Amino acid sequence: MSSKISTVDLIISGGTILCIDPEMRVLKNHNIAIQNGIIRDIYPTTSAIYEAAETIDAQDCIVIPGLINAHTHVPMTYFRGLADDLPLDTWLRNHIWPAEARHVSPRLVYDASLHGAAEMIKNGIVLLNDMYFFCEQTAQALTTIGMRGILGEAVIQAMMSADGIHNIGKQALQLRTQFADNPLIDFALSPHSIYTCDRSVLEKCTDIALSHDMMIHMHLCETKSESENCLKEHGIKPVFYLDQIGLLKAHAVMAHGVWIDEDEMELLAHHGNSIITCTDSNLKLVSGIAPLQQYAAHGVNVCMGTDGVASNNNLDMLSEMDITAKIHKITTGDPSFLPASDVLRMATINGAKALGLEASMGSLEIGKNADVVLLSLDALETQPLYNPYSHVVYAMNSNCVRDVVIAGEIVLQNRVLTKVDEAEIIATAKTYQKQIASEQEK
Amino acid sequence: MSSKISTVDLIISGGTILCIDPEMRVLKNHNIAIQNGIIRDIYPTTSAIYEAAETIDAQDCIVIPGLINAHTHVPMTYFRGLADDLPLDTWLRNHIWPAEARHVSPRLVYDASLHGAAEMIKNGIVLLNDMYFFCEQTAQALTTIGMRGILGEAVIQAMMSADGIHNIGKQALQLRTQFADNPLIDFALSPHSIYTCDRSVLEKCTDIALSHDMMIHMHLCETKSESENCLKEHGIKPVFYLDQIGLLKAHAVMAHGVWIDEDEMELLAHHGNSIITCTDSNLKLVSGIAPLQQYAAHGVNVCMGTDGVASNNNLDMLSEMDITAKIHKITTGDPSFLPASDVLRMATINGAKALGLEASMGSLEIGKNADVVLLSLDALETQPLYNPYSHVVYAMNSNCVRDVVIAGEIVLQNRVLTKVDEAEIIATAKTYQKQIASEQEK
Repeated sequence: MSSKISTVDLIISGGTILCIDPEMRVLKNHNIAIQNGIIRDIYPTTSAIYEAAETIDAQDCIVIPGLINAHTHVPMTYFRGLADDLPLDTWLRNHIWPAEARHVSPRLVYDASLHGAAEMIKNGIVLLNDMYFFCEQTAQALTTIGMRGILGEAVIQAMMSADGIHNIGKQALQLRTQFADNPLIDFALSPHSIYTCDRSVLEKCTDIALSHDMMIHMHLCETKSESENCLKEHGIKPVFYLDQIGLLKAHAVMAHGVWIDEDEMELLAHHGNSIITCTDSNLKLVSGIAPLQQYAAHGVNVCMGTDGVASNNNLDMLSEMDITAKIHKITTGDPSFLPASDVLRMATINGAKALGLEASMGSLEIGKNADVVLLSLDALETQPLYNPYSHVVYAMNSNCVRDVVIAGEIVLQNRVLTKVDEAEIIATAKTYQKQIASEQEK
Repeated sequence: MSSKISTVDLIISGGTILCIDPEMRVLKNHNIAIQNGIIRDIYPTTSAIYEAAETIDAQDCIVIPGLINAHTHVPMTYFRGLADDLPLDTWLRNHIWPAEARHVSPRLVYDASLHGAAEMIKNGIVLLNDMYFFCEQTAQALTTIGMRGILGEAVIQAMMSADGIHNIGKQALQLRTQFADNPLIDFALSPHSIYTCDRSVLEKCTDIALSHDMMIHMHLCETKSESENCLKEHGIKPVFYLDQIGLLKAHAVMAHGVWIDEDEMELLAHHGNSIITCTDSNLKLVSGIAPLQQYAAHGVNVCMGTDGVASNNNLDMLSEMDITAKIHKITTGDPSFLPASDVLRMATINGAKALGLEASMGSLEIGKNADVVLLSLDALETQPLYNPYSHVVYAMNSNCVRDVVIAGEIVLQNRVLTKVDEAEIIATAKTYQKQIASEQEK
């Protein structure tokens, strides 16, 4: 009797696998066989049907799909802790925007993106949906480190020339062509928000999004005054305003969605647009608490993001899951709302749905991308283990992230980044710190 | 010219020292000289006035006073994640209490305390104020690992014999004598709460506390129904009830204090009793959000605790500081409320004040105990650094805790526990997990 053994690129062997598939299967004693960046099979460890050049022993691990950071501004990593304990408006206008005007350059964007991406990988994140400036440099940084990204050049009308406005979207289309061979990178249109873009700009973005099948990634209803001002200026509530423009017909994802009413939710649900909740940032800047229970009732898909590090001040989705689960229990008065497994769905499959990547990401299933995170059970805070979902959300921290595989490639191995030199990234950050801090003191 | 050089036991050299003294000094290029477990001097690195057998290089660190976990139940560490996403009452009555009845033994208390204490040290905690059963075993575990503790045997009347009630306090006094030579350990009286102790029991505790200068550590106003029931049963609000009994005249610290009104706060302030806020636990069990702004207005000292790990589910004061700062910003609508430096005071000097240890703990000052935590700046999430307070509260995680000194002794060195074997502790936890999980499934 002979059994046929197939050769694959990588096998992740054993552990407790949280598939986050529609059945929410929890598999023990299973291997994940990976070939050409794709999950080829998930099969019992007892059947020796695959062999691989490389095997990761996941026996003492919880294995989850890579986390998706669906709203962030990764080049802001160098502004971590520059200003804190301030309201959004003061923080932005008196601290962040002046610092950005002084310091942001293509070079800074590359370096800070590399730093932020490295930090995110060490936090189990495999994809970031980003909005900032010089997004070509962010794309290059992600390529260097082997991480996925959807990148949008922020459109803030007051900062742009007439020419720039005329050319909105051109750059994104060019970059899409330029990075066509890189399956990790895609580009989006990022009109910053209703309050920073005229109707004509939002219409232009909508046109390009619809004609080129490009996602729109914008801020929406982050603060109360933002929502009120829309009503004042445009005579209509924000989501209805976007609907009037036609923007909701595009594939659009909206960060925050804190100050929004049930009619607006209904409209989002109707068009299938998703909300990205950013709990840490919304709390820290006192923007508010997103009405997640109502979103659920209306069938709006809600995923998660860290927002920029400067309003967080980390890029840690594990901690984001923990605080999100807890804050919405107290807000709804229901401790059974957002149980750990639901929160992990928000950080994985819901993120994939929001970004239109549900077919290829967000769960551990045969045929999907091999984006896999191994959370080690070798630390004190991970023992004893009764419920793996509870552990991931309530007990584990970023130090538990041991290995990260993106598109079949091991980018973090035994807590060491494989494609970049962490010490060098830290040294670079210190150089920028000196420049930025000395300017701050002036 | 000759300069006299004194010999000390240990020097912590350089870094950014957050003294948390009344002036909130931030010292750079200073050394901390430690002798006989006490901070003998804090002096510029340029003056070579001390030499020591051992020096810790803190150059790339933020140096803070050891964190004080002012309310916890450390032997519950083995019940981490046993039940989640449930209201306090169901969680306690259907899950925690039955598991405790089945499993808690002196041996489990020792092992679980050692595990929890190890975890706390790795989270920068130097002292825990604990309430549980078999507290002699917890004292032994803390002695093994070199950590400070104030331990109270929980008084829950329904679980005690008439004899047991008659002997309340006797054990604490005996243990105090037994551990008299151990400066790390002290004992307290722990009537669990108003709803689990008759008036006569609370009176008895008060008498012993006053006559033997022993602290009372109890739960107070954790849930709304608890406060309402007190009014219903005793015709008087909880803090007034305790005042009537005379308990507030003792040195008493109260965990939670969520459902409390301004008259009650006034009374606490008048008697100088402190509140221990446990944000994570209060959110997770939907107990409520403590009115910290009102406490501040009334001059009530508020410190912090993790509560038991089973309602958290970690023992991480860094994460507790982060969530506390953020939740109270959103609750008060004021992003400048509880700035990072205030939150760090809550976790250090306010804890010392609450426990009557202000003269010897809670800040880095000459003459105080040498309880020092070094937070390393060698990780991605710690760079760049503009504001050390912001970093400690909003950016750093437990992995940043590099070295911990308690009473002049290095108990954590380069992230390795010096007095216990971490792998052995984890292996022991796994053994208990098997027993407890198999019982759960029955």
